[in-house]
Amino acid sequence: MQLIDGNAISAEIKEELKVKVQERKKHGLKIPHLAAVIVGNDGASLTYVNSKVKTCRELGFDSTLIQLPDSITQEELLRQIENLNHNQDVDGYIIQLPLPHHIDEKEVLLKVDPAKDVDGFHPESIGKMALGMDTFLSATPAGIMELLKRKNIDTVGKKCVVLGRSHIVGMPISLLMQRNSQPGNATVTTLHSRSEDVEKICAEADILIVAIGKPGFLKSHMVKEGAVVIDVGITRVMDDTKKSGFSIKGDVDFDDVSPKCSWITPVPGGVGPMTIISLLINTLKAATNKDEK
Amino acid sequence: MQLIDGNAISAEIKEELKVKVQERKKHGLKIPHLAAVIVGNDGASLTYVNSKVKTCRELGFDSTLIQLPDSITQEELLRQIENLNHNQDVDGYIIQLPLPHHIDEKEVLLKVDPAKDVDGFHPESIGKMALGMDTFLSATPAGIMELLKRKNIDTVGKKCVVLGRSHIVGMPISLLMQRNSQPGNATVTTLHSRSEDVEKICAEADILIVAIGKPGFLKSHMVKEGAVVIDVGITRVMDDTKKSGFSIKGDVDFDDVSPKCSWITPVPGGVGPMTIISLLINTLKAATNKDEK
Repeated sequence: MQLIDGNAISAEIKEELKVKVQERKKHGLKIPHLAAVIVGNDGASLTYVNSKVKTCRELGFDSTLIQLPDSITQEELLRQIENLNHNQDVDGYIIQLPLPHHIDEKEVLLKVDPAKDVDGFHPESIGKMALGMDTFLSATPAGIMELLKRKNIDTVGKKCVVLGRSHIVGMPISLLMQRNSQPGNATVTTLHSRSEDVEKICAEADILIVAIGKPGFLKSHMVKEGAVVIDVGITRVMDDTKKSGFSIKGDVDFDDVSPKCSWITPVPGGVGPMTIISLLINTLKAATNKDEK
Repeated sequence: MQLIDGNAISAEIKEELKVKVQERKKHGLKIPHLAAVIVGNDGASLTYVNSKVKTCRELGFDSTLIQLPDSITQEELLRQIENLNHNQDVDGYIIQLPLPHHIDEKEVLLKVDPAKDVDGFHPESIGKMALGMDTFLSATPAGIMELLKRKNIDTVGKKCVVLGRSHIVGMPISLLMQRNSQPGNATVTTLHSRSEDVEKICAEADILIVAIGKPGFLKSHMVKEGAVVIDVGITRVMDDTKKSGFSIKGDVDFDDVSPKCSWITPVPGGVGPMTIISLLINTLKAATNKDEK
């Protein structure tokens, strides 16, 4: 069994990105600029957004945090987004979810200019991905593809089973794994809450991507000898042995499953650290797209 | 074995659409208006477009055929599309493919206003479909879903194997069959040119959707007893016994496969007649969307 070390791979890519930004600076090209919009004061969301902004700065990106009050109206939020769409200095931006209950999240996300949609959540971005067109790939699926690529894991013609059909992981990773690209060209089966024979179908997979948010769901009897297992789960569970009182659990029972795997991602430290990487890659791409015009 | 008779079902839906258009007329609402753009004089394309326009008129829709010369420039074609986007009387329009070689097809299709994209080919339409949002579904996949619905064929939790990952059939039907809708909620596996174990995977399917353009590809040993088989192939093959010199063949070896099926679509007269139906449903929807504003 070999570990797919997301921390090591993300550190490697961060160094590459830092050099690319320095190169741009040297050539007088625009410094990539990411803005992050957060509405309200939710502690976890704030921590998450702040860490994105901090990573940006470490790598030489410009970044702006736009913190808006919980009481903001739909109209005012849409106006703020309109401003970001028109702001020539901002190359890409994200809107931290969830938004307060009185806000129509769908209308807000549809308002994002697809040219600045570095989260890859806009229908046009998803559609272009499905059609194999150049676009911003959504962060977690793109991070998984990057892990497979960096480890030279062969996916062509392999049986890939995706557990989960969520809009942010399961559905897009199914499309990426089956399309004609490298990595890609796998034979993909997508399982979900209505699927039957789940254990048997998993046990036939060469590559398993698990994104259902059920800690420890995947057990060794559901895994073929030599399979590649990618664990996208990140659930907080109570843990008295930790100072924080909780630990982060993946969807895979790691101790049980890992001895059978050729490759496996740990949780934490597997897919998790790749999400911010995808966001940075997309922001650099947004800035580079403007060079070409 | 029971036949899924696309001719009978499309005739039934045509009657329903006719009544809906009459109702709109009665209530002073706008008559749905479909425009079709064709560039050049290709015989087959002209026949195809003319039959769409004719069907529109039979059902009381307004329709316009815009025939443009082969020599049209990219700029002039884009200007024509801009006009259609702004024309308040046209609810939806289609651009007959293929376009001449000197035209950048992708740029043209991206120019179509998604609100008028009744072919469902624009990335935004595909993305909304993938995200389960309200949109125009692309014609052939929507036609297949309609056949399954009208025949009350149970898809929930069933193993559905889609042969082919094309942008106009395989990929979108995979998404429609797996998403949380009715029909839908199937466990979908998508096979393509790089897949291995194709025969074995097909033989385990409860529902087979074949869209690869290889006449007679699917044989009985690849089909489970009681399977539902949907044949999307329409290939012209030479046939001396026909006056025209050719006949239309599906991707399924019908005589060999049909005795094992619970349901099967014939070719011709299965999926084929449903494509125009989807287009008409989308055009009616485009007109209705305007009512609500």
